[in-house]
Amino acid sequence: MNKRGFASDNNSGVHPKILEAIVNANSGHVAGYGDDVYTQQAVNEFKKHFGNEIQVFFVFNGTGANVLSINSLTNSFNAVICPATAHIFVDECGAPEKASGCKLIPVITQNGKLTPELIKPHLQGFGFEHHSQPKLISISQVTELGTVYTVDEIKAICDLAHQHNMLVHMDGARIANAAVSLDLPFKNFTKDAGVDVLSFGGTKNGMMFGEAVIFFNNDLAKNTKYFRKQSTQLYSKMRFIAAQFIAYFENDLWKTNATHSNKMASLLASKVEKLGIKITQDVSANGIFAIVDDDVRDKLQQDYFFYPWDELNHEVRWMTSFDTTPDDIENFHNALEQLLNE
Amino acid sequence: MNKRGFASDNNSGVHPKILEAIVNANSGHVAGYGDDVYTQQAVNEFKKHFGNEIQVFFVFNGTGANVLSINSLTNSFNAVICPATAHIFVDECGAPEKASGCKLIPVITQNGKLTPELIKPHLQGFGFEHHSQPKLISISQVTELGTVYTVDEIKAICDLAHQHNMLVHMDGARIANAAVSLDLPFKNFTKDAGVDVLSFGGTKNGMMFGEAVIFFNNDLAKNTKYFRKQSTQLYSKMRFIAAQFIAYFENDLWKTNATHSNKMASLLASKVEKLGIKITQDVSANGIFAIVDDDVRDKLQQDYFFYPWDELNHEVRWMTSFDTTPDDIENFHNALEQLLNE
Amino acid sequence: MNKRGFASDNNSGVHPKILEAIVNANSGHVAGYGDDVYTQQAVNEFKKHFGNEIQVFFVFNGTGANVLSINSLTNSFNAVICPATAHIFVDECGAPEKASGCKLIPVITQNGKLTPELIKPHLQGFGFEHHSQPKLISISQVTELGTVYTVDEIKAICDLAHQHNMLVHMDGARIANAAVSLDLPFKNFTKDAGVDVLSFGGTKNGMMFGEAVIFFNNDLAKNTKYFRKQSTQLYSKMRFIAAQFIAYFENDLWKTNATHSNKMASLLASKVEKLGIKITQDVSANGIFAIVDDDVRDKLQQDYFFYPWDELNHEVRWMTSFDTTPDDIENFHNALEQLLNE
Amino acid sequence: MNKRGFASDNNSGVHPKILEAIVNANSGHVAGYGDDVYTQQAVNEFKKHFGNEIQVFFVFNGTGANVLSINSLTNSFNAVICPATAHIFVDECGAPEKASGCKLIPVITQNGKLTPELIKPHLQGFGFEHHSQPKLISISQVTELGTVYTVDEIKAICDLAHQHNMLVHMDGARIANAAVSLDLPFKNFTKDAGVDVLSFGGTKNGMMFGEAVIFFNNDLAKNTKYFRKQSTQLYSKMRFIAAQFIAYFENDLWKTNATHSNKMASLLASKVEKLGIKITQDVSANGIFAIVDDDVRDKLQQDYFFYPWDELNHEVRWMTSFDTTPDDIENFHNALEQLLNE
Repeated sequence: MNKRGFASDNNSGVHPKILEAIVNANSGHVAGYGDDVYTQQAVNEFKKHFGNEIQVFFVFNGTGANVLSINSLTNSFNAVICPATAHIFVDECGAPEKASGCKLIPVITQNGKLTPELIKPHLQGFGFEHHSQPKLISISQVTELGTVYTVDEIKAICDLAHQHNMLVHMDGARIANAAVSLDLPFKNFTKDAGVDVLSFGGTKNGMMFGEAVIFFNNDLAKNTKYFRKQSTQLYSKMRFIAAQFIAYFENDLWKTNATHSNKMASLLASKVEKLGIKITQDVSANGIFAIVDDDVRDKLQQDYFFYPWDELNHEVRWMTSFDTTPDDIENFHNALEQLLNE
Repeated sequence: MNKRGFASDNNSGVHPKILEAIVNANSGHVAGYGDDVYTQQAVNEFKKHFGNEIQVFFVFNGTGANVLSINSLTNSFNAVICPATAHIFVDECGAPEKASGCKLIPVITQNGKLTPELIKPHLQGFGFEHHSQPKLISISQVTELGTVYTVDEIKAICDLAHQHNMLVHMDGARIANAAVSLDLPFKNFTKDAGVDVLSFGGTKNGMMFGEAVIFFNNDLAKNTKYFRKQSTQLYSKMRFIAAQFIAYFENDLWKTNATHSNKMASLLASKVEKLGIKITQDVSANGIFAIVDDDVRDKLQQDYFFYPWDELNHEVRWMTSFDTTPDDIENFHNALEQLLNE
Repeated sequence: MNKRGFASDNNSGVHPKILEAIVNANSGHVAGYGDDVYTQQAVNEFKKHFGNEIQVFFVFNGTGANVLSINSLTNSFNAVICPATAHIFVDECGAPEKASGCKLIPVITQNGKLTPELIKPHLQGFGFEHHSQPKLISISQVTELGTVYTVDEIKAICDLAHQHNMLVHMDGARIANAAVSLDLPFKNFTKDAGVDVLSFGGTKNGMMFGEAVIFFNNDLAKNTKYFRKQSTQLYSKMRFIAAQFIAYFENDLWKTNATHSNKMASLLASKVEKLGIKITQDVSANGIFAIVDDDVRDKLQQDYFFYPWDELNHEVRWMTSFDTTPDDIENFHNALEQLLNE
Repeated sequence: MNKRGFASDNNSGVHPKILEAIVNANSGHVAGYGDDVYTQQAVNEFKKHFGNEIQVFFVFNGTGANVLSINSLTNSFNAVICPATAHIFVDECGAPEKASGCKLIPVITQNGKLTPELIKPHLQGFGFEHHSQPKLISISQVTELGTVYTVDEIKAICDLAHQHNMLVHMDGARIANAAVSLDLPFKNFTKDAGVDVLSFGGTKNGMMFGEAVIFFNNDLAKNTKYFRKQSTQLYSKMRFIAAQFIAYFENDLWKTNATHSNKMASLLASKVEKLGIKITQDVSANGIFAIVDDDVRDKLQQDYFFYPWDELNHEVRWMTSFDTTPDDIENFHNALEQLLNE
C-alpha cells in the first residue's frame, strides 16, 4: 500500500466505483472517438446538471481542457487575462501561448481571485492593432490558493467581460470542491453566472483520467471538435472516459468525494491552527496554505510528501483528497506537533 | 455485450490482464507525473527490449506521441517527409504542422512504404533559406496500408537520412503487429536499423490508453519533457499508464495479442479471397484492404462496422484485433458470402 | 553600373518614377502605420481598379502578403490546396504553415496551373475531425512556371471552391504581367472571376518594396489588421509604400513596365528557339523555361546570373524585367549562340 | 509640407543623405536577398562598430527584428522576462508569443528599466517541466519611458542572466539616442556589457525602413537565416536596406541625427518645465513624459499630433525626431503656454 500524503489531490488513485465502471464498459467493440452510447450517456449526465443547451467535449487532462477552451474562444491576436497564480499562467509550460498564440496577462491578486477592479486596468487598446485584443478572462474555481468565488463575484466578472464583448473561461479542475463549498448546484455558479466555457475536472476528485470542456453557447463550439483533434486531445477508446463520468455523477459520487475532501481540509486546518500554525488563505475547499519553519518543513517532508508554495515566505501547501482519512490527518498532525516541540 | 466489428483495432476494449494491472496499481498515493515506482519499472521493461541507452516518455495517445517526436527533432523551418498515406499527414487534423510549424511533404507510394528512390527527389534545398529544410523522415510500421517494412528497407531509409544529417521517426502505433509479422525483436527493426525516435503504441493492441515515445539518442530528448507538458500530453496519474505497459510486457502479452490479431487477419483474408474478393495489399499484419461492390459493402455495413478506404475504387479496410475470434471471422465471411450470392 | 541578368525580376532596381514619388513624399511628419493621406490615396487607386467594395492592406513583401491572406481566411485546422510548384509551398521556408498552422496540400501539375480535376480528389473529409478541413485554394497568376490562367480557368476553380464553402487566394506577385498577357483589367480575372483575396505584387515590376493584400469580401478582412501587425508586416512609415503604389498606377506605369518585360521574354524565347533551344512552358509572361546542356549552362552563368530550375532535366529559368533591354537580349542570345557552337 | 508634430520619431520622413544613398544604389541588377556588395559593405560597417565576431541580419522593421531575435534564442517552452512597458509586451499585438510560442513575463518597473532585484523573483522553476523555462531577458535601450540604462546596469542584468544560463536581448529601436545620451560607442553598452543579441534600429532615426539583428555569439545565429525567411522578414531587393545603413554610418550620420533629436527633447523639457509642467521620467534621450490637464491636452492635440500615455494619470508622451527644429519647439511651447493661460 502506497502511503497517502498531502502533496496533491492527483497523487491519489481512483475511486472504486470509477474503476468498476471502467471494468463494466470493457465489453466488445464500440465505435471510437466518442461515437458510442457511453459517451452519449455521459453527455446526458452533464445536461442534467447544466441544461440541454450545452456542448460537451471530453479530453484527457486539465491542460488539454484549458487549451481547448482557449483555442475555441480566441484568435492568435487576443489576450487572455488571468490571475498571476493561474494554472494556465504558471503550471502549463506555456501550453496556452503555444497552442493559441495569445498573450496571457497575469494579474496579481491577494487570494487567487480576480475582481472587476483588478481586471479593468487591462481592458484597453480595443480596436488598436498594436495591442493584443483582450478577449478572454480566465478564472479558476476553486482557485490555485484554495479560495472559492461566490456567485456574485463570478457574475461581476462575467458582466464586465460581456460589456466589453469578451468571454469568460472557468478552470474547474476542482469544481466539485467548489460546488460543495458553496453548497450550490454546478449550474448556479457557472452557466447562470455568465461563464461561457468551463473546464470540468474529474481527475483530482477520484477519476483515473478525463476532463470535460463544456460550452454554454453552442456558437463558441463550432470548431471545437477540430481543435480537440489537432491539439492531440481526442481519445480513441472514448468509452473509458465516458464510463467514468457516468459513475462520477451516479448517486452524486462527485459530491461524496468532494465533501469528504473538503471536510478533511477543514479538520487539518483547525488542528494545525491549534498548534500555532498560521494559515494564509481561507480554507474553502481542499487546500491549506500555511507558514511553517523551513527545518520543520524539511523534516516533515521526510515522512509526508507535500510542496513548498512560497519558499521565500516559508509557505507550504497541503492538499487533501477524496481518500484522505481522519487517521491520516491525525498522524500528520501528530508528526507536525512533535517536530514543533523539538 | 457490444458486438465486435472490423472497423479499427481501437474499437476493441482492454485486455483483462491490462485491466487487472490498473486495478492493482490503484493503492494509496504516489507522486504524480511519472515520479513513481510504476513508471520506473515500466521504463525498465522498455530497456529490456531496447537497451539501456534510451529515453522513454509516456503520453496519452498516438497523435500525442507523433507530435512529441516531431517537436523534439525539428525546428519550425524544417520539413518532414512521409508517405502521402501517413497518419501524421492524413489523420491528425494538421496536429504536426500546428505543433511544430514544419512543412509535411507527402510522397505518393504504392503500398504505404517509402523507399530511398521515392525520398531522394525531396532531399534538396539544403542550406537554402527559401526552402523548408528537410530534417525528418517519418515511416509507419505497420504502415497505414497494412504492409510491413523489412529490416533492410528500414536500414536503407535510415542510412539515406543520416547521410543527409537527417533523422528517422517511426510511427509504431501497430509495432507489435509488425514485430510478430517479421518474427523479430523490436530492437532489430528500430534502434538497430537506425531509427532515431519511435512512437510505441499500445492502445491498438489491448491497452486502455497510453503510448510511449522512445529516443535512441539521448541528445535528441533533452527538451522532450518540456515539449510533453507544453503539448498537453503529460499525465498526472502516470502510474496508470505505467502499470499497463508493465502488464503489456509481462509474459509477452503484447506478442500474444498481436500474434492472434495478425492470425485473424490472415484467416479472414484467405477466406474472402476464396469468395473471389480481391485483396489489394499484402496482408502482413492485422489489416486487410479489399475491393467490394458498393451495394455489398453498404449491406454488410448494416451488420458490421468497418470503413471504406478508397471509395472511388470501391476499396474497403477491415481491421482485426486482439479480441477478434475465429467465430467473428466465420460469421463475417458467411454474411459476405450470402450478400455476394444475392 | 551593375550588370543586368536573367535571374529574377527582383534583381532589378526601382523604376525612376517610383523613386521620384518616394522623394516627393518625404516631407514633414505624417501619422504612422497608414493613417495618412498617401495611404488613403493609394487605397483609392486600388478602388479605381477593383471597385469600392474592397479592403486593402499594404505589407512589406510577397511572403508577408501570402501569409496575411492565409491567416485571414483560415483556422489552424484547415488545409490549403496549391500546386506543388507554388511559391507558398516551395519558396517560403514554411512560413504559411508556421504562421497559420494549416496543412498545405501540394498538387502536381504539368504547367503550374490547378484545374478542378486536379483539385477534386483533395476535396474530402469535410466535417471529419481527423482530417484537416479543406478551406482555401491558392493559385498564382502568373504561375511559377510562367504560365497564365485564363478567366474561365480561374472561374472554374472559384466556382468549385465556393460550392464547397471554400475560398480562393491568388498570389499575384506578377499580376501586372498577367494582366498584360491577358490584355484584361485586373478586376476581370480576380474579383469578377470569383477570387476572394489577392496578393497584389509590385516589387517584381519596378517598385522598391511593398505589396498589397486585397479582400473582395469585407467580412474576410475583419481581423486582418491584427494579423498584419502580429505577423510583423505593419510598416511604420507607410507613406513610402503608399507613394510607390500611387506612382505605380499613375499613367499605367504598371502596364508600361509589364508590357515591356513580357515583350522582352517573347523576344528572348523566339531568339533562343531559333538556336534549337527547347522551351518547356508557354511563354505567356516574363519567364522562360528552357532545356540547356549543363556545360553550356555553367559557362553562360559565368557571364549572366540565372537559376537552374530542374537540374535533373537540365531545365533553366530566365526571367526578364521592366529594365531588360533589347540589347541585353541580343547580347545574351549571342553569348548562348557562341557557347552552343563551341 | 506636412506639419511636424511630437507623436513619434517614426512620423518623420527620411534624412536626405539616406534618400541619396537609395538613389545611388538604384543601378542595374544585383542578386536578391542580400547576396550583393551593398549588403556586404553594410555588414562591414557594423563590424567597425561591434567587432568582426558578429552576425548581422537585415530585416524590415522593429517588430520583425525582435521576433527574429526571440525565435533565434528560444524554444517554445521558454519564458521571456521583460518590463511590463516593453514594446514586445505592449505594442506588437502578441507577435513574440505567436512567432515563438514563448511565455512573456511582464515585470512592473518605475522607469521602464529592469534590475536584478526585479528579475530575480522570476528566475524559478528551472528544470521543472510544468514551468515555462526562463531563457531570455529583454531590455529596451532607450526604454519605452525615455530612460537609458547605464553600462553597469546592463552588465548587472547580463551577469545575472548568464549565471542562470540565460541570454539577454536588447531592443535598440532607439539605440542611437542611447549612445548619444551615454556618450559611448555602441559596443560598450551592448557586446561589451554582455548583451547577446541586439535589435539595431534605424527607422526612428532617419532611415526609410530597415533594422538589423546583430548576434554577438555566432552559435546563436546558426538558424537565424531560416527564421528570417519563415517569419516573412527576408527582403528581396536587400541592397536598398543595405545602402541606407551604409549612409547611416557614413560621417556618423546616426550620431548627428540622434544628437539633434536628444537636444530638441532637452530643450522642450526645459521650456515646458518653466511653464510648470511636471516631467515624470528622466529626459535622457528623445522622449518626454509629462502631466498635462486633459482639456489642455485635447486642445493642444488639435494643432499637434501626440499621444496620451497614461490617461488615468493625465500623462502624455512627446517625442522629438532628427528633423525637429528649434522653431518647432518654440511654437509648441508657445501654443502650450497660451492654453495654460486660458
